[in-house]
Amino acid sequence: MAQPNLRDAILASGLETLHRKGFNATSVQDIAEAAGAPKGSFYNHFSSKEELGAAAVEAYAAKMGQLSLLQDKTVAPLARLRRHFVALAEAARYPYDCGCLLGNFGAELSGQSPLIRERVAAALAHWANALAAVVEEAQREGALPRDRDPKTLASFVIDCWEGAVLRAKVERDRAPLDAFLAITFSKVLA
Amino acid sequence: MAQPNLRDAILASGLETLHRKGFNATSVQDIAEAAGAPKGSFYNHFSSKEELGAAAVEAYAAKMGQLSLLQDKTVAPLARLRRHFVALAEAARYPYDCGCLLGNFGAELSGQSPLIRERVAAALAHWANALAAVVEEAQREGALPRDRDPKTLASFVIDCWEGAVLRAKVERDRAPLDAFLAITFSKVLA
Repeated sequence: MAQPNLRDAILASGLETLHRKGFNATSVQDIAEAAGAPKGSFYNHFSSKEELGAAAVEAYAAKMGQLSLLQDKTVAPLARLRRHFVALAEAARYPYDCGCLLGNFGAELSGQSPLIRERVAAALAHWANALAAVVEEAQREGALPRDRDPKTLASFVIDCWEGAVLRAKVERDRAPLDAFLAITFSKVLA
Repeated sequence: MAQPNLRDAILASGLETLHRKGFNATSVQDIAEAAGAPKGSFYNHFSSKEELGAAAVEAYAAKMGQLSLLQDKTVAPLARLRRHFVALAEAARYPYDCGCLLGNFGAELSGQSPLIRERVAAALAHWANALAAVVEEAQREGALPRDRDPKTLASFVIDCWEGAVLRAKVERDRAPLDAFLAITFSKVLA
């Protein structure tokens, strides 16, 4: 019978392993072993590795706690946007080799799994909406020009972030994250 | 005995298959079949799928013909930068599901293959140098402010492009590429 705690353990270790090693390079056996569970019990909780991958995207997006920084109205909108990305950059750890699960899965699986592609798209859209609300606030207060649609600008900034995280992963260097912070907040969100 | 033409055929079909399906989702069998070659003959030309993947990165970077647009000094530097990215965007085809091989491999393989990670890093650095030379020219002519190191700015723009291509792949939509062109050339390279 399916044990709820075992499902959580498989999801948590699956998320960690898939984030670190990628989807196709990880087997159900790897995930079960990392959760300290027999392989057979995996299938009591998830019908396939793809279903676990989709759940991992949702769990990853939900724990992006930096989103809550965007809602702290005691901080001015532009400062809030900066805090959000500074917190994301601080969460990255040397050698920056895991990257962002959304970007990793988007790159590896968009052609392979419609289910995971849709979950990644939904997570990115949710993030863009949260960011766009703050951009709109900054525009209303006159801290940003009203020359761009907030959602388009927010999505562009997320794309720049994803590109910077990917480059940090390839170079094993934090410099692309620092360049993102410096240039985004002096030229794009300015 | 290794036949040079067969090596080229395996590399060309390997590049196409790896670009479309990803590295770990493609087998040596898939690649040999796509080249119309028996699986055994693959190993007359490449010691492993990893070696083919590394050669595919070099072949992909070499055929990014848009780099030559950066060297056309009859066109003003900023217009040249725009032409380069417009040409890259035009080369993307609906449903934008292949993405950029450099970004795909960077995301999927940076932790798995030091060889491919280094080839991707080298290709991105080569591209950034070509772009930085034009940024520097634009700064010298006063078309861009001298507030940023040309190499840092060029690398950031490439990261933004890679993020936009990745988002286009996830959303099966060209809109992120158009947003990249509009915002980069009105705010970052402006």
